[in-house]
Amino acid sequence: MRQPKIMIYSPNDATVYADMLCNQIGVEYVQAASTPEEAAEKLDGTEVILGWKIPLELLASPAAASVRWIQSMGAGVDDLVRSSHIAPHVRISRVVGQYSAPMAEYVFAHLLAEYQNLNQMKRSQQNKEWRPFVPELLAGKTIGIAGLGSIGSEMVRKARAFDMTVHGLSYSGKQAHLVDRHFGPSEWDAFVRSLDCLVLVLPLTAETAQVINRELLLAMKPDACLVNVGRGKLIVEHDLIDVLREGHLRTAILDVFEHEPLSADSALWELPQVCVTPHLSGMNTDERICRYFSENLKRYVQNEPLMGAVDRQLGY
Amino acid sequence: MRQPKIMIYSPNDATVYADMLCNQIGVEYVQAASTPEEAAEKLDGTEVILGWKIPLELLASPAAASVRWIQSMGAGVDDLVRSSHIAPHVRISRVVGQYSAPMAEYVFAHLLAEYQNLNQMKRSQQNKEWRPFVPELLAGKTIGIAGLGSIGSEMVRKARAFDMTVHGLSYSGKQAHLVDRHFGPSEWDAFVRSLDCLVLVLPLTAETAQVINRELLLAMKPDACLVNVGRGKLIVEHDLIDVLREGHLRTAILDVFEHEPLSADSALWELPQVCVTPHLSGMNTDERICRYFSENLKRYVQNEPLMGAVDRQLGY
Repeated sequence: MRQPKIMIYSPNDATVYADMLCNQIGVEYVQAASTPEEAAEKLDGTEVILGWKIPLELLASPAAASVRWIQSMGAGVDDLVRSSHIAPHVRISRVVGQYSAPMAEYVFAHLLAEYQNLNQMKRSQQNKEWRPFVPELLAGKTIGIAGLGSIGSEMVRKARAFDMTVHGLSYSGKQAHLVDRHFGPSEWDAFVRSLDCLVLVLPLTAETAQVINRELLLAMKPDACLVNVGRGKLIVEHDLIDVLREGHLRTAILDVFEHEPLSADSALWELPQVCVTPHLSGMNTDERICRYFSENLKRYVQNEPLMGAVDRQLGY
Repeated sequence: MRQPKIMIYSPNDATVYADMLCNQIGVEYVQAASTPEEAAEKLDGTEVILGWKIPLELLASPAAASVRWIQSMGAGVDDLVRSSHIAPHVRISRVVGQYSAPMAEYVFAHLLAEYQNLNQMKRSQQNKEWRPFVPELLAGKTIGIAGLGSIGSEMVRKARAFDMTVHGLSYSGKQAHLVDRHFGPSEWDAFVRSLDCLVLVLPLTAETAQVINRELLLAMKPDACLVNVGRGKLIVEHDLIDVLREGHLRTAILDVFEHEPLSADSALWELPQVCVTPHLSGMNTDERICRYFSENLKRYVQNEPLMGAVDRQLGY
């Protein structure tokens, strides 16, 4: 099998990936880079990049002329798609199918914790108080999943096991059959009005950016839960902060933000109804990403269709 | 329809139940009692008791001679079954099917919170720290459900939606087909050895009392999770405290205890691996219990089989 020259780019664990690919999976010609400078040094002759937070301006440099394929370590590739530095002939692929279980478990962990009121249970234990109450149930509530790709579909499946009514909104409508009621992109208002919990799993595109604005937030039930595991920029963040301060919405569970890491002076950290987590719902183990990449590398070398091939027109 | 004389006994909300049954559901001849003294006064002529924590010694009094049917408000009836004060001709029924969703949601809320490490997420938010980590998944883990009645079966169903391997132990073996691997009562040791999470949903009987002792606890994986939503006396509580202090087991999520309410001087409140909750996993709304009772009352009056009829030999 032909072995193209590969560069791993990751600010945190590029060498971990490189070692794993070389030693455990037998991939050769791998270089690791953790900083833009290191990447610039090693880029020459690189055909394939496996990367996370790749410094995109590098890709416009002459040394990048050999690059043919960029495999993102993540499921969302809005930065790559939007970048004017990536030549049209460079293929982009994202990780698909690997994030469904982690992201769905994150969502149901947080929704169950909210309705069961695990915080109150914990406070009672700390005070050694025996105070039974009747926890609220997911069963019977209506959840709406915005984005019905592989991740959203997995959330639909788990919502079924909790006997929830499941609504969905998607731009393609391809998976409309999965949900009890499907809404298209012109029906955001009716969609959010129908829900107890709104979960955002959409990719960030020109159509979805800032779609959740003040108007839609106020159209949600006053005691609805909002969960965002898609992209921070799906929501107009200052609109969200405003409506939460006005006492609207029961809770906002946010794993993604307009700017990441979330700045220390953001009001979101301290709003009592908000749960802030550091973009970890789709965290994957290095090992699983390496296995995914090595399978895709095989396909790349053999000229077979890539898993998670990105349509740069569609944006995902 | 004949209307037998009914007494509601509940230390907390007997009058709430009585009002609800009279006004909303149209049941007549209902008396409410919250204390043994009140119950003694009102017992004469009572044919049906809907009760929670009924003072059993009363049932041996001459005034109880008219009692024909006791409907427990709970799913567990070990106290009623063991009592020598209840004449053999008195029928006992328990609430079946109403606790499946609440108890299963309780179990998955706590297991997901443990593996996702919601506590760490919360601490990071309080400190405004952006520290991503890879949460552990339920997917791929092995859960063992001890007790495969209606509640245990619902837990099996939810475990499937999380792609867990599901083992089960039951005394009757009737639902063995639901699980990937079934164990009988002589196979406790092999059962617990196979598990990442052990969930106890068994009724308390002569066979199940104190079945989880030091030996079985030590047979569990050192990083296993133990969840008890059955009865406190399934576990030898001081054995559990000992093995936890020795650093065995990842966590114990306990909703039921040898003695309830859990005494303020129990070590369980403060052990860092233990989650204590006040017997609320099977809390039901008054309304749902009233509806169940009124359906069963119809059956009783029309001489049809009762829902949740208890076999006093079997003990549940």
